[in-house]
Amino acid sequence: MPTDAATAARTLARYAVTAAYADIPAAARHEAARSLLNWIGCAVGGARHPAVDKALAALLPFAAGGQCTILGRRERTDALHAALINGLSAHVLDFDDTHLRTLLHPSVPVASALLALGERQPISGRDFLLAFIVGVEIECRIANAIWFAHNSHWYITGTAGVFGAAAASARVLGLNEDQTTHALGIAGAQSAGTREMAGTMSKAFIHGRAAQNGLLAALLAQQGFTSAETSLEGPHGFAHVLAPERDLAALTAGLGTTYEILSNSYKPFACGVVAHPVIDACIQLRNENNLNVADIEAIALRVSPRALELTGIKEPPNGLKSKWSIYHSAAVALADGAAGEHQYSDERVNAPEVRALRAKISATADAQLTEIAAHVTVKLKNGSALEKRIDRVVGSAENPMSDRDLEMKVRGLARGVLPATQTDAMIALAWRIDELADVAEVARAAAAA
Amino acid sequence: MPTDAATAARTLARYAVTAAYADIPAAARHEAARSLLNWIGCAVGGARHPAVDKALAALLPFAAGGQCTILGRRERTDALHAALINGLSAHVLDFDDTHLRTLLHPSVPVASALLALGERQPISGRDFLLAFIVGVEIECRIANAIWFAHNSHWYITGTAGVFGAAAASARVLGLNEDQTTHALGIAGAQSAGTREMAGTMSKAFIHGRAAQNGLLAALLAQQGFTSAETSLEGPHGFAHVLAPERDLAALTAGLGTTYEILSNSYKPFACGVVAHPVIDACIQLRNENNLNVADIEAIALRVSPRALELTGIKEPPNGLKSKWSIYHSAAVALADGAAGEHQYSDERVNAPEVRALRAKISATADAQLTEIAAHVTVKLKNGSALEKRIDRVVGSAENPMSDRDLEMKVRGLARGVLPATQTDAMIALAWRIDELADVAEVARAAAAA
Repeated sequence: MPTDAATAARTLARYAVTAAYADIPAAARHEAARSLLNWIGCAVGGARHPAVDKALAALLPFAAGGQCTILGRRERTDALHAALINGLSAHVLDFDDTHLRTLLHPSVPVASALLALGERQPISGRDFLLAFIVGVEIECRIANAIWFAHNSHWYITGTAGVFGAAAASARVLGLNEDQTTHALGIAGAQSAGTREMAGTMSKAFIHGRAAQNGLLAALLAQQGFTSAETSLEGPHGFAHVLAPERDLAALTAGLGTTYEILSNSYKPFACGVVAHPVIDACIQLRNENNLNVADIEAIALRVSPRALELTGIKEPPNGLKSKWSIYHSAAVALADGAAGEHQYSDERVNAPEVRALRAKISATADAQLTEIAAHVTVKLKNGSALEKRIDRVVGSAENPMSDRDLEMKVRGLARGVLPATQTDAMIALAWRIDELADVAEVARAAAAA
Repeated sequence: MPTDAATAARTLARYAVTAAYADIPAAARHEAARSLLNWIGCAVGGARHPAVDKALAALLPFAAGGQCTILGRRERTDALHAALINGLSAHVLDFDDTHLRTLLHPSVPVASALLALGERQPISGRDFLLAFIVGVEIECRIANAIWFAHNSHWYITGTAGVFGAAAASARVLGLNEDQTTHALGIAGAQSAGTREMAGTMSKAFIHGRAAQNGLLAALLAQQGFTSAETSLEGPHGFAHVLAPERDLAALTAGLGTTYEILSNSYKPFACGVVAHPVIDACIQLRNENNLNVADIEAIALRVSPRALELTGIKEPPNGLKSKWSIYHSAAVALADGAAGEHQYSDERVNAPEVRALRAKISATADAQLTEIAAHVTVKLKNGSALEKRIDRVVGSAENPMSDRDLEMKVRGLARGVLPATQTDAMIALAWRIDELADVAEVARAAAAA
């Protein structure tokens, strides 16, 4: 079938089947390694979260065996459960990577599915990297087609990420074009996850399920299980049903010549990415002015409309919800000069000085500001005012974290979970993943003793 | 928290926790037994479908053990996989029950989850029936709230059925009100399944996943895994995101005093229920007039608008798709006087006499006709015309299949899968389920030797 007559799923499947490692630009391969390092750090860092404890308590009785590592933990499980649990832990801190255009978190679905498969069958580092890049490409393209009319209601990693997990799994399972087309369809039959789950464990669950459901789709397709070829663009398919408007050309235009992985970004702060410009501004204001929060009279935030829409919780009831509060984020950034996991704990949410600071903050949406920009004015009790405008937040594509920054982030996440020497070895392995004969080595390096 | 301040999920959860067997009217209990008999027959009848073979080939390597029966087969598996596979096989023939107002198929999610649990822990027949009625009540109420603005794009059994599986599972697992509220939320986080999958194995997969995902939701909630209390009515919750219009009052009005199970219906014909009035008319025309299809010049169908919308495939490419063709349904009903599984085989779709007959059929939507009505005119080559109007199709709530009809249907489905004596014993057990000390007996009675 010629490309111009093929459905979008078939065109994407053909790309998944035929993409070659040698054709991937070095920059894309390096960005993939950065993504994987950040993902593994987030999974290790989230491994002791209560959501992971509870999911394991519920699901280990249903696990088929101990083939696969649960990153940052001692327990082992089967590949389908490993994909779910590693995806859950890698997202539960809201600290994983972000495709900035769509807010999709690319690595959780794709890497969680792939590494689980990598302990079921030998996969070389190059095959792994290639499948990872293919999966990210496909999920981000599907996200590009719908995010603008989709994200207000859905978690796009749950809905579009499942396709990436399916495509990447299909590639390493050696599925052909037909099977991969059906794998994408079966993935689409499971697209799920609404934003009502914000601030609950079910948000991370939606992300982990994208990994598990995509892997399941590829396993079913491998056996000849069927789905609709028109799963993406059909009148009752993914794009039409889950988005009132869509840009179907984005699904396939330039496929194989551009790389969405190059638009991936990593969070320096442990909360929703749209709150980051305000945090960046507040930390800079604090550090540059040696600010004492006792001197603050009032704080005025000007942010992008989407930042206020997604992180507008004024008084978060707990740590998990505080990640979606631009007020709390600004308060801890000014009080602590940081916005790591500790700043989003129940303890910091309820701390009197943080409460007092939150009460002094007002926020307004400014349509002139992009999502990587913010403006913060701190009015002091002595009558003076300090201002900081951020145009390109740290961690954005325009101002990315360095490789060294990423290593520091991963070390911080792994602290208390893995010994420092093991963390160093894990980081070193992740950087040279393209040389590995078997990526299972990476999984073993991230298991708790 | 008083009822009027509770979220819909909490109100439904409270009902799930507090409903008592003694309060259920005898008619509802009997309808539940009829539903279960029909469900088990469909699962046994579908057990050898290629979709089931392929799913088992893909998934048995990931099954934790052999605690649970796969109905109509020899293999055994764990409860989560049993819920999926039994749900898949019970729907794959498109022959399972239908809540006529919403077109939700009530038993697949609820019974498939419950019977799987019934082989993990002892559940008495009365506890099973009560949990089944509770699960059906909750999924149908959720469906009542959204079907009218939902069904054109979604499979409502996939989206709303998952809540029924979660509620029923929560009840037999002994979850409290809080846990059950969260189970409903976790279920909602997995609501999925668009109609683009029509005529592929993924349609039945969506139905089976509703059973498995609901059970998974209850198992997670049992461990304290959290979700949104406002999963149903919240601004980014199920009802708002998956339907442009909704009737939220339908979620809880009259809860505990009316019974949705009383609106359940069973298909006499192995295809989409909206095609049934035409089939009923054609079989009656054929039998009453001793009709020879060679004498037919043309056939004109007048049907409800929804019938044409859902079953408007003029030339189905295969047996699975032919279940969604009112043209094929009319053709086989006239040619064979039947519309069972055989009539929806690839063989009958491609049979020259059926092809010829399909070509003579025209269909028009008539807004005056309800979904249980149809009008068929057969014009003969001798110039005369025969007409039949159906106002209340057989199998509808107004003209239900008798208990005896249901037994006949189940015997037909089980033929070739189970020995006739075993089928008789299975039917007898299903009728006296309320007397059983342990419903696992029913599962064992439906296993292939």
